[in-house]
Amino acid sequence: MKLLIELSFLGTAYCGFQVQKNGVSIQQTVQEAAEKLFGPVALTGCSRTDSGVHARSFYCTVEGEGCGRIPPERVPLALNSLLPPDIAAKSARAVDSSFHPRYSAKGKEYRYLILNSRIRDPFLEGRVYRCPVELDAERMNALAAGFVGRHDFAAFMAAGSSITDTVRTVSRCGVQRDGELVVFSVAADGFLYNMVRIMAGTLIDLSLGRLGDRSIADIIASRDRGRAGFTAPPEGLYLWEVYY
Amino acid sequence: MKLLIELSFLGTAYCGFQVQKNGVSIQQTVQEAAEKLFGPVALTGCSRTDSGVHARSFYCTVEGEGCGRIPPERVPLALNSLLPPDIAAKSARAVDSSFHPRYSAKGKEYRYLILNSRIRDPFLEGRVYRCPVELDAERMNALAAGFVGRHDFAAFMAAGSSITDTVRTVSRCGVQRDGELVVFSVAADGFLYNMVRIMAGTLIDLSLGRLGDRSIADIIASRDRGRAGFTAPPEGLYLWEVYY
Repeated sequence: MKLLIELSFLGTAYCGFQVQKNGVSIQQTVQEAAEKLFGPVALTGCSRTDSGVHARSFYCTVEGEGCGRIPPERVPLALNSLLPPDIAAKSARAVDSSFHPRYSAKGKEYRYLILNSRIRDPFLEGRVYRCPVELDAERMNALAAGFVGRHDFAAFMAAGSSITDTVRTVSRCGVQRDGELVVFSVAADGFLYNMVRIMAGTLIDLSLGRLGDRSIADIIASRDRGRAGFTAPPEGLYLWEVYY
Repeated sequence: MKLLIELSFLGTAYCGFQVQKNGVSIQQTVQEAAEKLFGPVALTGCSRTDSGVHARSFYCTVEGEGCGRIPPERVPLALNSLLPPDIAAKSARAVDSSFHPRYSAKGKEYRYLILNSRIRDPFLEGRVYRCPVELDAERMNALAAGFVGRHDFAAFMAAGSSITDTVRTVSRCGVQRDGELVVFSVAADGFLYNMVRIMAGTLIDLSLGRLGDRSIADIIASRDRGRAGFTAPPEGLYLWEVYY
């Protein structure tokens, strides 16, 4: 039996979702909790996440003979009693054995949260990237429109990735200010390694005049990582929603 | 010279504002940072706070010969470089030597945050009280109106307090729901020990039918702590604003 489980996690204490040599992963932590409930399971996540990245909504499947022991609707509370406070199971349902949390996803939305303030906020430490210099969110929003559409995003992929097909379709993209919080949202059919963090860094750099007058279209067309902006740090990044 | 400093802090790691025998206090932490900047100072807070209680806005004065070394507008950034991430100095200004952060306050607003959900939220752990049973926020709001006015709040003071004048004036009081978050707000000229937490616990108990059909007016009139509800836990409580 295969269960699709929705998780939410604060990534600060973890080396990312996937099992790594150094540090504790979300995957390993959830797998250990699931195996206490169900016995041996295979666990597959909907995406990799970097160390320190958060998820408002993240999906994984667990598959094993014991997964039918508990009715799916009771699985979240049972798992939560075994998980640490910074990871929660939000919902669970049975899925077909052909379902894959990554390949069955039609798309995903990420958000990148920037606290635009000279003064830190103790309630947002490790949960936002703080930029002390005034950002022009309206201009960033206008620039972000340049990401929408089907493009080769090679310029927005971290060096060293082995991916060769770098074409993705961005369906929505925008920047909104809410007081001192500047939120970059982007939905696409898929994302390259560090793509959202480089997009966010590029919008910040452009807003601060650090990249001259180049446009998003210019940077995309260059297919050159060196033309884009900095890789914004992981603590501002949230996997927000996965579309199935 | 005397400076009035506005702080914001996540209280989770502290034994409260005031210095205690066991545990690290906010007061001691801020005093040590201030003394690195100014040399010896006397530090006075606007209120006591319990272990685990938070402050969106808290005021303290620091007074000492060295307090004029830095222009007040530069004090927050200088202090923040010396404070841990869960405490921030938000603003600072010079005040008259007669100013007292507690006695000069005209009133304060507290908020009590309840996550009304069977499922925990990793982003709100230690920052809300989670109530898994459905609360009727509209009814709680109607009940909360019973707190408004000048009353003897003896029934809403923790046993063991040495305070004898238990009359306070509540100027505003209400409960609002925002999704799964239920927020109790109360502004008054002063508060008794544990008063907001007992008020919050009483509204929760009344909403869940645990106190029969007694009204807030009945409980106030009784002056009996035993007639009120439970003391809601500290992690949901925020000192929200201080009025000078």
